[in-house]
Amino acid sequence: MQKKPLILVTNDDGITAPGIRMLIEVMNEIGDVVVVAPDSPQSGMGHAISVNNVLYCNPTTVDDGPQLEYSCSGTPADCVKMAKNLILNKTPDLCVSGINHGANSSINVIYSGTMSAAVEAGIEGIPAIGFSLLDYDWNADFRPFKEHIKKIALNVLLNGLPDGVVLNVNMPKLKKEEIKGIKISRQANGNWKEEFDKRTSPFGKEYYWLSGEFVNKDKGLDTDIWALENGYISVVPVQFDMTAHHAIQKLNTWDL
Amino acid sequence: MQKKPLILVTNDDGITAPGIRMLIEVMNEIGDVVVVAPDSPQSGMGHAISVNNVLYCNPTTVDDGPQLEYSCSGTPADCVKMAKNLILNKTPDLCVSGINHGANSSINVIYSGTMSAAVEAGIEGIPAIGFSLLDYDWNADFRPFKEHIKKIALNVLLNGLPDGVVLNVNMPKLKKEEIKGIKISRQANGNWKEEFDKRTSPFGKEYYWLSGEFVNKDKGLDTDIWALENGYISVVPVQFDMTAHHAIQKLNTWDL
Repeated sequence: MQKKPLILVTNDDGITAPGIRMLIEVMNEIGDVVVVAPDSPQSGMGHAISVNNVLYCNPTTVDDGPQLEYSCSGTPADCVKMAKNLILNKTPDLCVSGINHGANSSINVIYSGTMSAAVEAGIEGIPAIGFSLLDYDWNADFRPFKEHIKKIALNVLLNGLPDGVVLNVNMPKLKKEEIKGIKISRQANGNWKEEFDKRTSPFGKEYYWLSGEFVNKDKGLDTDIWALENGYISVVPVQFDMTAHHAIQKLNTWDL
Repeated sequence: MQKKPLILVTNDDGITAPGIRMLIEVMNEIGDVVVVAPDSPQSGMGHAISVNNVLYCNPTTVDDGPQLEYSCSGTPADCVKMAKNLILNKTPDLCVSGINHGANSSINVIYSGTMSAAVEAGIEGIPAIGFSLLDYDWNADFRPFKEHIKKIALNVLLNGLPDGVVLNVNMPKLKKEEIKGIKISRQANGNWKEEFDKRTSPFGKEYYWLSGEFVNKDKGLDTDIWALENGYISVVPVQFDMTAHHAIQKLNTWDL
């Protein structure tokens, strides 16, 4: 009998979030699961790491599943670093992050704690996937996506991923029978038009809430946003070499 | 007479850090400067934004320069969002972030608060540059780099930057006469080998400090690390389309 793969599960909504509990359930069908996840919500943390703060990390039990679980005080990227270098004695075969409560399509990949965990795993040489559902409800229905998540994870275990590439998977808010399939996509060109909601504290101090509206500027039919809007699960290969190689020639003409 | 450019200055070490004070001094020679920077150190914040916290932002005066200054409670990315959408009534001609106390070469671009501010400005359509010095000393000598910083900023104002590209400038710890020049570079392939320093609190609780050693795996002579190690200032064009376009064909052969 072949050895079961070792799968690291993490997220950014915290270890008790329904999204990660579903991801653990699916991964338990595939391999030996170790969960190392934040003890509190870390949404919007981007690729933050704890350089000025100490970290706590303790074994915990959340449900009666067979997985080992650790609850940590750090960011999603911290959790992956601790998992690999402190908790596990070897490199896992796969790291999955999520399922995020809310989509991480287009530019949101860069703000996403879910994706920062997957990217950190990729940097550490672990094949990695971030999963997100376009539904911000804490009680969102993750069940329609179980088979797709399993299929994508098995494909990564079977085929591996190119060096320096992780996957960003976004799922539309649909019933199982409404999902049209999986589309390999690219990150749509879009950004947030921010608004700041100004308020006054009980003590007379002005403060702001960051809010805003996402604007998709990309008319392409090959984007993650297009896939989501047309009933598909989008899979974007994401790299962490951020060099704009195409700009190097032009910069070399500057008078520097 | 031509109108002076409007320059937004921010950083991640906090508004009073010597690095940003030097950057403000140089930018005052070029344009009208508005500073919107964190009220406390934000190193390692990556592209974090404040989604679960409120933000404070207040006018302040740090020195007797002509610039306007605002001190904010958020992350570097928050500062850029507040600058554009709350404080300024127009898009600045340039955003500069730094000078960071410590290098942001290779994979550190992804953990860097300094670069997240520059990237956020790029996302908002503002030509942007992050500056970092390979010297972690709070009293590092930033003076040798004044002319180079000015030259790079003037080139960006004159030539513009390609869509979706910002600059990551790293400077070696050298005397002025030792600096060999400026090299357009790419992000070196490297990562951190983490170590966790385990300690016990006065109350008997175990905690950890994240530390480690950077490993450069890249033998290329065109990398930012090579430039720094050989006496050059490195300029890497950075993009925030993180799609691994080269991987799309391969993923389309998978059984999904």
